Amino acid sequence: MEPWMLACTYCQRKYPLDRLNPRCEPCGEPLEAISPGPGTINKVNPLTQTLVDRYAAFLPLSPVDRDLTLGEGFTPLVRSDRIAHRLGMKSILFKNESSNPTWSFKDRGTAACVHHAVARGVTKIGTVSSGNMAASVAAYGAMAGLDTYVFVSARMPKEKINPIAIYGPTIITVSGDYGALYYESLSLGERNDIYFINSDVPLRVEGSKTIAFEICEQMSFAVPDYVIIPTSSGGNARGIMKGFDEFKRSGLIDRLPSFICVQAEGCSPIARAYTAQHDRIEPYLHAETIAHAIENPYPPSGNEILRQVGAGKGIVTTVTDAEILAAQSDLAAEGFFVQPAAAVPLAAAVNLRRRGYLSETDTVVCILTGSGLKYTAVFEHYRFPVREATLENLEDAL
Amino acid sequence: MEPWMLACTYCQRKYPLDRLNPRCEPCGEPLEAISPGPGTINKVNPLTQTLVDRYAAFLPLSPVDRDLTLGEGFTPLVRSDRIAHRLGMKSILFKNESSNPTWSFKDRGTAACVHHAVARGVTKIGTVSSGNMAASVAAYGAMAGLDTYVFVSARMPKEKINPIAIYGPTIITVSGDYGALYYESLSLGERNDIYFINSDVPLRVEGSKTIAFEICEQMSFAVPDYVIIPTSSGGNARGIMKGFDEFKRSGLIDRLPSFICVQAEGCSPIARAYTAQHDRIEPYLHAETIAHAIENPYPPSGNEILRQVGAGKGIVTTVTDAEILAAQSDLAAEGFFVQPAAAVPLAAAVNLRRRGYLSETDTVVCILTGSGLKYTAVFEHYRFPVREATLENLEDAL
Repeated sequence: MEPWMLACTYCQRKYPLDRLNPRCEPCGEPLEAISPGPGTINKVNPLTQTLVDRYAAFLPLSPVDRDLTLGEGFTPLVRSDRIAHRLGMKSILFKNESSNPTWSFKDRGTAACVHHAVARGVTKIGTVSSGNMAASVAAYGAMAGLDTYVFVSARMPKEKINPIAIYGPTIITVSGDYGALYYESLSLGERNDIYFINSDVPLRVEGSKTIAFEICEQMSFAVPDYVIIPTSSGGNARGIMKGFDEFKRSGLIDRLPSFICVQAEGCSPIARAYTAQHDRIEPYLHAETIAHAIENPYPPSGNEILRQVGAGKGIVTTVTDAEILAAQSDLAAEGFFVQPAAAVPLAAAVNLRRRGYLSETDTVVCILTGSGLKYTAVFEHYRFPVREATLENLEDAL
Repeated sequence: MEPWMLACTYCQRKYPLDRLNPRCEPCGEPLEAISPGPGTINKVNPLTQTLVDRYAAFLPLSPVDRDLTLGEGFTPLVRSDRIAHRLGMKSILFKNESSNPTWSFKDRGTAACVHHAVARGVTKIGTVSSGNMAASVAAYGAMAGLDTYVFVSARMPKEKINPIAIYGPTIITVSGDYGALYYESLSLGERNDIYFINSDVPLRVEGSKTIAFEICEQMSFAVPDYVIIPTSSGGNARGIMKGFDEFKRSGLIDRLPSFICVQAEGCSPIARAYTAQHDRIEPYLHAETIAHAIENPYPPSGNEILRQVGAGKGIVTTVTDAEILAAQSDLAAEGFFVQPAAAVPLAAAVNLRRRGYLSETDTVVCILTGSGLKYTAVFEHYRFPVREATLENLEDAL
């Protein structure tokens, strides 16, 4: 069997798997891992194995001599008959990624990257993020005993830094063009042997594949009609698409779902290019949305998402902040308190069902990417009624 | 086979399972569910079943005609060789309950109670809590479509109410003696047919058993020497003890661990009675600890915990706020960001190892009860170093 390698998502140029720079030299587009062939699930009781154990045949990870896990993955897939009925759809299911160790989907990709780092003897890792990914990389860097660097924007409020800093990484606030920092971190990483595990590096995309793998298992290999994914850098959407694809090529499922990549209207560079039928994204000026976790004005995998949907895999669409808040509220009424970015799939489902794009026979899976506890500033948009009583008149207040 | 029933933990008086009041009429002590006999695990892929499915033989729950789950349980058990080495112990493992749907262990008991409520036709539930339990009951009440009442202290700051209110329960702030509210809620519940699923009701204790069940499975039925549990009402500790006990009586494990119930020194009514060799707790005056989630000055299952440890099942001990903060920091350095109350087990392990109570041959499991995102006010106790740089001088800052 051939070994795993990397290939450019655009020009197919090949690179060795252990290359630190995640982009193609000549064309600048993102690389991805190329699987040597079909795989099978390592079917052991998931309570006694790690995500990397279970899906080892599908991941380009060499064994290491110690445990490198915080218990990522194996998150719930929960059906809501009430929402399905309200929308007039056959079935809607929520993949709740807020049950991960740092309460977002990022832990899957981070676990894969940290495993990869240790296997190849890297001792320093880094990331450019001020949210879910920063907390995830800081936590896994701490677990694995790696020197961990987190670059955050100098404009970031201190209270957002605390839940990252608690894990003990080196935090550097960087003033200047934050968009340029992604590219700067890559060359800086190469010069200083720091593995920057940013939003769309190949091993992070590999980790995101496990979301697809679990959905297949949890639906007993019946494939949903649609999977709806909040889309920022494009890394997670790429991983989920790739996961379904590899299960199909391994004969575990017999068709692919259609993928709906959703951006917030206030920061929608991929959707804008998609609508205009361009094949390259442009930086999105004056980005502003309540869904901060997907507010990326120049997504590094944006062009690759355009290529994937252009090849018939799905569509790119947008939702407004008002639709996002309504969906956040609707999800809480089902028992899911998610961050605004994670409400985007339900907002899109509501919108697309109303427009007739989704039909009454459809089964839809929404990816709930992160916990509502991550962004409590959203409460300024809510007014909750609270009743007051004393111990004596409590019964009257019911 | 006999049906499940309730019995007083003190006088053994029997009651029907469906009784709403969780306490014994004559003696006032808490009731518990009595199992009709040994059980077996329903061994299906946990990715495709619920907690209640897997452990159905051990839970007094009748089938209902709809799904009643948010994906609770099946949380990771993660070993830390680094901490074990530092403490000079054979093995230390962390059961991370912050991976539950509302990010605390409470979801297990709430899921069991809500299932019980729906099975017996109850349409109104309630709870007395301002923290983990309130959020959990509000979420599961929303999921199940039940009218949900949450009684919180009038002194509670508004920002603590928001993450509960988002799920849409009826929130009533109650001024007056908050301790008396627990008992008031029970009679008020009986009069108004509201099922108050407070901290130590029998079905909540049943839900907590599943923590023990999973630990047994995750350790391949090798029993740890010690299980260390943050102890507030006593409900969770009762459940975990009962779970191990039932697996032993079912022949699934061959011995019991020893249980270490840990309270915060600033609110330690059970530990004080234990040390003084009293068989009843007294209300703890002037309670104050950073571990708010276990700050219960008059725990309703306090006497039962004294009876259990008095019968040789373990000990009760305390840790200081300084020890709790140090343990919170140590856990973050392993990749776990927990609320202060959840750092209490590691604080106790450090303390008890230093005092020689724990030995170098011991295997210890710590229950990490809830997420650090639940109580970010703790950051006022931390000062994190942050470096500053511009895009141009970034490399110098490494």
